[in-house]
Amino acid sequence: MESQRNSDLKPFFEPRSVAILGSLRDQWGEGFKAIRNMQTFGFAGSIYPVNPSYDEVLGLKAYASVDDVQDDIDLVIVVTPPPTVAGILQQCALKGTRAAVVVTENFAEIGGDGARLQKEMAEVARRCGIRVIGPNTIGVLNTSNGLVTNPYHIDYDSINKGGIAYTSQSGFVGAQGQPLQDRAYPISKMCDFGNKCDVDEADLLDYLADDPDTRVIAMHMEAVKDGRRLMAALRNTTPRKPVVIFKTGRTEEGARASASHTGSLASGGNVYHHALKQAGALLVDTWQEYWEVPKVFALQSLPRGNRVAVLTPTGGIGVASVDAAVKAGLTVARFSDATLEKLRELAISRARNPIDLGPTMVMVEDPYSVMKAAMGAALSDPNVDCGIMVLFAGSQAPVADTVEMVRWATEQGRKPVAVWIYGTQVSARDETARQVEKLGVPAYVELETAIKALGIAAGYARMKADSGRAAS
Amino acid sequence: MESQRNSDLKPFFEPRSVAILGSLRDQWGEGFKAIRNMQTFGFAGSIYPVNPSYDEVLGLKAYASVDDVQDDIDLVIVVTPPPTVAGILQQCALKGTRAAVVVTENFAEIGGDGARLQKEMAEVARRCGIRVIGPNTIGVLNTSNGLVTNPYHIDYDSINKGGIAYTSQSGFVGAQGQPLQDRAYPISKMCDFGNKCDVDEADLLDYLADDPDTRVIAMHMEAVKDGRRLMAALRNTTPRKPVVIFKTGRTEEGARASASHTGSLASGGNVYHHALKQAGALLVDTWQEYWEVPKVFALQSLPRGNRVAVLTPTGGIGVASVDAAVKAGLTVARFSDATLEKLRELAISRARNPIDLGPTMVMVEDPYSVMKAAMGAALSDPNVDCGIMVLFAGSQAPVADTVEMVRWATEQGRKPVAVWIYGTQVSARDETARQVEKLGVPAYVELETAIKALGIAAGYARMKADSGRAAS
Repeated sequence: MESQRNSDLKPFFEPRSVAILGSLRDQWGEGFKAIRNMQTFGFAGSIYPVNPSYDEVLGLKAYASVDDVQDDIDLVIVVTPPPTVAGILQQCALKGTRAAVVVTENFAEIGGDGARLQKEMAEVARRCGIRVIGPNTIGVLNTSNGLVTNPYHIDYDSINKGGIAYTSQSGFVGAQGQPLQDRAYPISKMCDFGNKCDVDEADLLDYLADDPDTRVIAMHMEAVKDGRRLMAALRNTTPRKPVVIFKTGRTEEGARASASHTGSLASGGNVYHHALKQAGALLVDTWQEYWEVPKVFALQSLPRGNRVAVLTPTGGIGVASVDAAVKAGLTVARFSDATLEKLRELAISRARNPIDLGPTMVMVEDPYSVMKAAMGAALSDPNVDCGIMVLFAGSQAPVADTVEMVRWATEQGRKPVAVWIYGTQVSARDETARQVEKLGVPAYVELETAIKALGIAAGYARMKADSGRAAS
Repeated sequence: MESQRNSDLKPFFEPRSVAILGSLRDQWGEGFKAIRNMQTFGFAGSIYPVNPSYDEVLGLKAYASVDDVQDDIDLVIVVTPPPTVAGILQQCALKGTRAAVVVTENFAEIGGDGARLQKEMAEVARRCGIRVIGPNTIGVLNTSNGLVTNPYHIDYDSINKGGIAYTSQSGFVGAQGQPLQDRAYPISKMCDFGNKCDVDEADLLDYLADDPDTRVIAMHMEAVKDGRRLMAALRNTTPRKPVVIFKTGRTEEGARASASHTGSLASGGNVYHHALKQAGALLVDTWQEYWEVPKVFALQSLPRGNRVAVLTPTGGIGVASVDAAVKAGLTVARFSDATLEKLRELAISRARNPIDLGPTMVMVEDPYSVMKAAMGAALSDPNVDCGIMVLFAGSQAPVADTVEMVRWATEQGRKPVAVWIYGTQVSARDETARQVEKLGVPAYVELETAIKALGIAAGYARMKADSGRAAS
């Protein structure tokens, strides 16, 4: 059976046409909202509302059934009651549809009848050759064509295009969980697997490995359905693109909580941890890391080594940064004599790595030109592979000067850099972060996450180089 | 010699009068800024600017020397060049001053002459019986009397009064490092030890242990000068108040970086880790944890046990929370039958712990009244000792409703609670955090930090109970 299944996930992300089956009630209905979201995001293809109670919705003709749609339907979004779903999938399959996002809840996650219905529905889909994402999902999102299957309210009218594909086994992916418009998460695709009755991480890895818009894949994962397939897909993908994994349900208690949420038992303990790592996955430990670590891959080049320059406005943060860097597998770069000479010429009193720019910041008339020259010199040093740049945000640190310093220094250095911003004003911190990320430099909420991101990037670069050598 | 030293730190934090020696240059001079800061913060005592070039500054009479001041000087703030400091301290001591904050830089942290000058200055101070905080410090801050010795610009005109004393071996403490006005860090005292030529953590622990305004002590620490004294001070303090420690310079590289920043060698490796823990310190690992973990002690009661209720709007975050809770030493509470019954009456489809309120949030007409009842029921359960409350912030989640839900549920439950807010809008997230903290409920930047804070609080409560039993 498996072998006969169509393995092409293209219709999920690049459909020419989409049909939506669900309530079209004004403002409230899931079908209504899914259509409005697609219109807002500027979906490039055709949209077919299907609901016998309506003639028209949001300027689009509504159809009584999928059979009435004269066009092919590449993707169907289903938000109808559980017992109706299997029949709808069968009908769509007969029409030639190969891909369905089943948003509907109350399947396996409620056990009993729900579990039985999910099993039947998945069986029908398999027989008809229609692939299913879900049920209990908000489905997919593609920034390159404005496709979004999410039938709930979305707080944005757009998401930044970029290189990160986020996948999750929970509704918090898909424009619901993060301030994706306020902050620069550069995104290619998103996918919520929901109860994962069919399409899973292995399928998506195969698709994303070849997706030219995706530079890095970030996966939140609870249950693993087929470990062998997942590891094979990872081994195929990780030499080509970094795959960051946030595996939850790692504790026994967490695994039990997972079972009651998506209907599938998470693989408790740390059974998969070692296997995922062996297959080249880059493991992260927190929600924040899942969102933030991939930015370093999407926005920056890979470091050529693990020697880091630490640029900071306080010595105390410099020491904490060094601890975190060592923990993240980085080493503190030793500046070349030429760099040390330049730093002394700039009258940097602590001309070593970490560079503590605090004294410069408060003692010099034009601190930013001195600091930017110092940062540029450090990042240009041939002994430096990457940089952690700590910025201060507050009324005494003009955002424009700070951002110009980052622009100039990173342009000089042409090394991957991660930025952490701290300071006295939330508004200044957020504004600095926004502007720094516009330059293509990732800004982090936590110092340790910024440093961990660089460490993971350096580790990935080394892995890639090693496997390159092994192959040649 | 040691035994003759005055051990009273009261003049540092509760001086009736303060003299400032340093540049009084308008807007720029450190003396000028220190005085302006004290006036802004409403320092209750007398302020004496000392500088022979001025007659008056900021409405205050200036004096040519400390000897011209007719009043006693309880505390002197020194921001004059390094070679002048020892003489000034001697002069002040003769006048009866017992406490000096030496802000001046370029002492031991630059080695050579600076190290020699620091040694001499400390020796003079010791002989004269004047205690010194610093050099290379921004000194102290006391929210109860408006004392602030910081001679740099401060972005606030006040700091929230509360139970946390933050101490640090770096200038990032003292109203320079965090958005202390934008977010509710409830603070009693702050102290930057700088190069720590005299007053150190052990001294301050002794003082803060008896300080009625301080409920919890948070220490950032690089070098340990006298391990035996520190451990004794900790053993004396930790049964009475929690002491949270962020020890940096833990790696060898970090210790080296520390040496070049404060002139004292941090105790590399993890030598002190075990000893600090044995002495009852609560160890944290990141800058964020150093700032955020103490809030749970300052704002909430101690949990009576380690059984946590997890209240979340998405199942995925519930699973991640459970993993983090177990890692933090908490266990997932088993709700009583009465609670389960109440949850079923509320039609909570997933009536178990973690409670996933997501379906309620999108399916019910008045979700907040249902969610608040569910949260209240969970927190009131006798099997629950504390709660992690995950809140969603975005246009679909009215801040007022969210905050009212937290108010009502925490009032029902009367259990320590930590809140984590995520969502689609930075502004809504920040506003929700601000309002939640106004209720006295700590809101966290990261899910894992919120949970770790509860775990640390539960661990401290257990330690206290154990030592109570051992003593009786």
